[in-house]
Amino acid sequence: MEEVLYFNELYDLYSGLLTDKQREYFEDYYFNNLSFSEMAENYDVSRNAIFKQIHIVTDKLKEYESILKLHEKREKLEKLIEKVSDDTLKNELNELF
Amino acid sequence: MEEVLYFNELYDLYSGLLTDKQREYFEDYYFNNLSFSEMAENYDVSRNAIFKQIHIVTDKLKEYESILKLHEKREKLEKLIEKVSDDTLKNELNELF
Repeated sequence: MEEVLYFNELYDLYSGLLTDKQREYFEDYYFNNLSFSEMAENYDVSRNAIFKQIHIVTDKLKEYESILKLHEKREKLEKLIEKVSDDTLKNELNELF
Repeated sequence: MEEVLYFNELYDLYSGLLTDKQREYFEDYYFNNLSFSEMAENYDVSRNAIFKQIHIVTDKLKEYESILKLHEKREKLEKLIEKVSDDTLKNELNELF
């Protein structure tokens, strides 16, 4: 479950770097909660092909995070923003990322 | 000149997403100030091939910025950080990005 949340957050940061097809697979599985069987039927491919594609997409997301570290930086930023005393400034900072 | 600075800043943000070869070309041209002729000789290709490769790399950097907008966000963040009154916190925020 925690992994699902993590992938969702990575997707939020890096989906623009994926292909349309990769986004479709990811959203069907992680957002629309389709099973591999349902997706296999919809795309007219084997369950195994779906399984592989999902892995390719999540590996891509992890690769982007290992290079750009936006998730890690955002978490650190959020902790620092909490220490900002001015509420208006705090809101402006929170809206940025 | 301003464009050179901009590309350097984009490179700072996105070089990890480029291939080794793309990084080499970029650094030879923008960091080491080699001419197209010098690079053509070093890589044993035509000046035109170098010219094209440099364009491909800068287009890639601009594409990443159009998708992820890290340069734009960092500039906004820097302006907001200036308003932070606590100097320790300001430094911690500046070190993040």
